[in-house]
Amino acid sequence: MSGLSHFDDSGAAHMVDVSVKAETARLAVAEGWVKMSAQTLEIIRSGTAKKGDVIGVARLAGIMGAKRTADLIPLCHPLPIARVAVDLVPDDDLPGLRVTATVGTAGRTGVEMEALTAVTTACLTVYDMAKAVQKDMSIGGIRLLSKTGGKSGDWEAPVR
Amino acid sequence: MSGLSHFDDSGAAHMVDVSVKAETARLAVAEGWVKMSAQTLEIIRSGTAKKGDVIGVARLAGIMGAKRTADLIPLCHPLPIARVAVDLVPDDDLPGLRVTATVGTAGRTGVEMEALTAVTTACLTVYDMAKAVQKDMSIGGIRLLSKTGGKSGDWEAPVR
Amino acid sequence: MSGLSHFDDSGAAHMVDVSVKAETARLAVAEGWVKMSAQTLEIIRSGTAKKGDVIGVARLAGIMGAKRTADLIPLCHPLPIARVAVDLVPDDDLPGLRVTATVGTAGRTGVEMEALTAVTTACLTVYDMAKAVQKDMSIGGIRLLSKTGGKSGDWEAPVR
Amino acid sequence: MSGLSHFDDSGAAHMVDVSVKAETARLAVAEGWVKMSAQTLEIIRSGTAKKGDVIGVARLAGIMGAKRTADLIPLCHPLPIARVAVDLVPDDDLPGLRVTATVGTAGRTGVEMEALTAVTTACLTVYDMAKAVQKDMSIGGIRLLSKTGGKSGDWEAPVR
Amino acid sequence: MSGLSHFDDSGAAHMVDVSVKAETARLAVAEGWVKMSAQTLEIIRSGTAKKGDVIGVARLAGIMGAKRTADLIPLCHPLPIARVAVDLVPDDDLPGLRVTATVGTAGRTGVEMEALTAVTTACLTVYDMAKAVQKDMSIGGIRLLSKTGGKSGDWEAPVR
Amino acid sequence: MSGLSHFDDSGAAHMVDVSVKAETARLAVAEGWVKMSAQTLEIIRSGTAKKGDVIGVARLAGIMGAKRTADLIPLCHPLPIARVAVDLVPDDDLPGLRVTATVGTAGRTGVEMEALTAVTTACLTVYDMAKAVQKDMSIGGIRLLSKTGGKSGDWEAPVR
Repeated sequence: MSGLSHFDDSGAAHMVDVSVKAETARLAVAEGWVKMSAQTLEIIRSGTAKKGDVIGVARLAGIMGAKRTADLIPLCHPLPIARVAVDLVPDDDLPGLRVTATVGTAGRTGVEMEALTAVTTACLTVYDMAKAVQKDMSIGGIRLLSKTGGKSGDWEAPVR
Repeated sequence: MSGLSHFDDSGAAHMVDVSVKAETARLAVAEGWVKMSAQTLEIIRSGTAKKGDVIGVARLAGIMGAKRTADLIPLCHPLPIARVAVDLVPDDDLPGLRVTATVGTAGRTGVEMEALTAVTTACLTVYDMAKAVQKDMSIGGIRLLSKTGGKSGDWEAPVR
Repeated sequence: MSGLSHFDDSGAAHMVDVSVKAETARLAVAEGWVKMSAQTLEIIRSGTAKKGDVIGVARLAGIMGAKRTADLIPLCHPLPIARVAVDLVPDDDLPGLRVTATVGTAGRTGVEMEALTAVTTACLTVYDMAKAVQKDMSIGGIRLLSKTGGKSGDWEAPVR
Repeated sequence: MSGLSHFDDSGAAHMVDVSVKAETARLAVAEGWVKMSAQTLEIIRSGTAKKGDVIGVARLAGIMGAKRTADLIPLCHPLPIARVAVDLVPDDDLPGLRVTATVGTAGRTGVEMEALTAVTTACLTVYDMAKAVQKDMSIGGIRLLSKTGGKSGDWEAPVR
Repeated sequence: MSGLSHFDDSGAAHMVDVSVKAETARLAVAEGWVKMSAQTLEIIRSGTAKKGDVIGVARLAGIMGAKRTADLIPLCHPLPIARVAVDLVPDDDLPGLRVTATVGTAGRTGVEMEALTAVTTACLTVYDMAKAVQKDMSIGGIRLLSKTGGKSGDWEAPVR
Repeated sequence: MSGLSHFDDSGAAHMVDVSVKAETARLAVAEGWVKMSAQTLEIIRSGTAKKGDVIGVARLAGIMGAKRTADLIPLCHPLPIARVAVDLVPDDDLPGLRVTATVGTAGRTGVEMEALTAVTTACLTVYDMAKAVQKDMSIGGIRLLSKTGGKSGDWEAPVR
C-alpha cells in the first residue's frame, strides 16, 4: 500500500498493531494560528488582561481536545497522555494568535495527532469565541514541529 | 465586553441563552485543505481508486467529528444536527486535498462550528493516514464560506 | 445508489438531510437474545432474586447504550431520546435471556438504531458479566420488531 | 413504586416517556461549595487576579459538565441545553468557594440534574486544582435552589 | 457468587481489581453476521466495488466501536487497545455479510469485550446503511472465537 | 504559583508531566452522602429489597462515572483504572445514604479525582431517582478519606 500503514495488504483500514512496540518516552510539538483583524486581536488581548479570557478558554479546550484525539481520529490508538501544554501568543504581524501545543506520553505510539488535535481545538475555540465580532477569520499553518521517541526516531520540521 | 457574547458583563465565560431564539433552518459551509507533496497526493489518489481509501475514511471522520462539536468547543451549544456532508477533492496545484463541509440543522443556534469542526477533523485524519509517508504536510485555509438562517441572517465569505 | 440513502449520487457517504422532516412521535421496538447453558442461566436467575443482579446491570447498560447510538453509528443522526425501556426475560427453552428494547422520541428521524443498539449493548453486558463462568455463549436474533411514526409510516416484522 | 418514576410497575429501571410533554422554557438553579483553609482560599483568590485562574478553569469545567449530564446519570434524558452559567465566589466565612449554576432549556424535561452536575463538576475541578496544597478540602451544600417551567410547575428551596 | 466475578461477596456490582495482574500480550477474535436478502447483499457488494462503500463504513465503525467498549459495558476496564482489525465478507449462502474482529493489547485484562463490541458495532452499521432497502435483516452468530494471553490462558471456541 | 501544580510559571493552566513518574500501585478512597427525609429513605430502602433498586443503579453510575473522570476534570490525566467499588449504605441518623468509593490503578498519577467523581456521580444519581418524591435533598460530606502509593506517599484524612 505504498507505505500507508493504516491499511492492510488488501487495502482495508485497520488500527496497526503496536503491542510489540516498547513503551518509551515520546514528545510531539505542533503549531498553528488563527488570523483575524487587528481590531479583533485587540479585543481578545484586552479581554485577557482584564476580563473575557479568550486565550484561557482556548488553552483549556486545546488541553481537553488532546484527550479526545482517539475519539476523533478513526485509526488513532488510545493512549494515556502524560503531559499537555498549549500556548496562545498574540502576534500583531499576523495579525492573530499563534498556537503551540506540546504533548508527551510514555507509550507505544507517538503523540503527533494529539498535539495537532490540541492545536486545532484551541484554534476552533478562538474562532467560536470571537466569531460574534468577526466571521472571516481563518485558521492555518497547522503542522508538526517536532517529535521525539519511538522506533522511527526524532524528527524536526524543515526550516521554512 | 466589546461584543464577545461568550462572556457576561463581568467577563465570566458562559453559554449564552438561546432558548428564546426561534428554531429555524440553518446551514453552514466551511472549507480547508491539507497540503502535501505531489507524491503523497498520488498515493492517496491511487488508493481511493483501488484500495486504501484515505478520502473515504477522512470523510467519515469529518461527519462524525461534526457530531462531537459541543464536546470539544467549551461554550458551544449541543444541537441535533440534521445533515452533514464532507467532500475531499484532490488538487494538483496545491498539491493536496481540498475539504468542504456542509452542516444543516433546524435549531436555535447556527452550525458554523460544526462545519469547521468537520473540516478540521477530516484534515487531521488525512494527516494521520498519510503521516507514515510524509510528516511535513500542513493544514490550512480553514474558514467559513457561508451561513444561512438565524437572527443575524445570511453571511457569505468575502471573495479572496 | 440503488436506494442506499446514506450515500449521495457520487457514492460518498453523508448524513442525509432530515431538517425538512416534521418532528413527529416515533417508536421502535427491537429484540435479541443471549444463548447460554442452562447452568449459566440458573446462576443469573438466582442472582437476580438474591444478589448479583446481572439483569439489572444489563438493563441499565442497554438504556445508556441507546443514548450512545449516534456516537457509535457513523451516519446516524443525534436525537433527543424521550423514552427507553429494556426488558430481559429468562427463557429455559433457549436457554438464555431474551432482550427487548423500546425507544421513543419526538424527532425528525426514527429510533430503530437506538432500539437495536440498546438490545446489543444489553446482550454484550450479559456476556461480559457471565463470561467468567461460560465463554461460549452466543448473541443472536437481533432484529427490529416494529416502528411507528415518520413519513415511511408504520412497519412490523413479518411473523417468523 | 411509591412515586419513584424512574421505575416501572415491576420495579425495572427505565427512562420515562417525555415525548408527550410540551416543549417549554425551563430553568434550574443549583448551588454548592468547596470548603478549604483560609490559606488555600487566599492562594486561589490571588491566582485569579494575577495568574493561575482556578475559578476560570472550574467555571468552564462546570459549563462543560452540564453538557455531559445525560452521559453520567443513567436515566437522565439527553436534551439540548440552551444556557449555562456557573459562578464561583470566594467566601471568607466558609472559608472557600461558593458555586452557583443556572441552566436553561426549551425542552420536554427539566434541567435540575444539569444544574447539579455543573455545580459538582466545578467543585471537583476546584478540588483537583488545589489538592496539591490541601488534601482535606470538602465539598458540600449541593442542592437545588429553584426550578421553573414544566408540568410540575415552579419550585423554590425552603429557606434554611 | 457462583463464579460471577463482577459481583463482590455481598452481591454488589464492582469493577474487579486487575492492578495486580501482569501486563501481557492479549488477543481476542470474535465473529458475527448480518443476514439479508440476496438482493440487498447484491446492492452492498456492487456498492463496494463502485461507490457507496457500506463495508468500508462498517469496518471503520467497528474499529471505532472497539475503542468505546469501556464506555458501553459498565464493568469493563478501560485499556489501551493496541490493534484492531475488522473484516466483512459477503456470503451468498447466508445470504449476508460475515464479520470478524481481531483486537490486541498489552494490558492487564483481556480484550474479548472489545472484539465482540467491534463485531456488533459493525453489524449495526451495516443494518443502518441498508435499512432503507430492507428492514427485516437480522444480526446473529455473535460469539468469541478465541482468546490468548492472561492468567486464564488460551481459549478457542468449540467447533460447531 | 504558590504550589498549584496545574499552572506553569506564567500562570497558564497545563496538564503536568507525569511521564517520568513510576507506574506504581495507587489506591484512593472517598466518601459523601445524600441527605433526605426519613420517608424518602424508607422508599429507597424498601425498593432495594423488593423492586426499584435505587442503590444498584447509583452504584453502577458511580463506577461508570469513575471512568469518565478525565473527560470531566480538565487537567486530570487519563489513566487505565484497574478497580472501582462503590458502596451506598442507608443511615437513619442522617437520614440518607452514605456513599464510599474505592478506586485503584497501576499508573503514573493518583486516583483521588476518580474516587471523588465516583462518589459525586453516585450521589447525583440518587438525587435524580428520588427527586420525584423529594426535591430538597442535599449532597455533602464529599471528601478524600485516604490515598496510598505515588511519590507523595500515603495520606489519611484527619479524624473529624
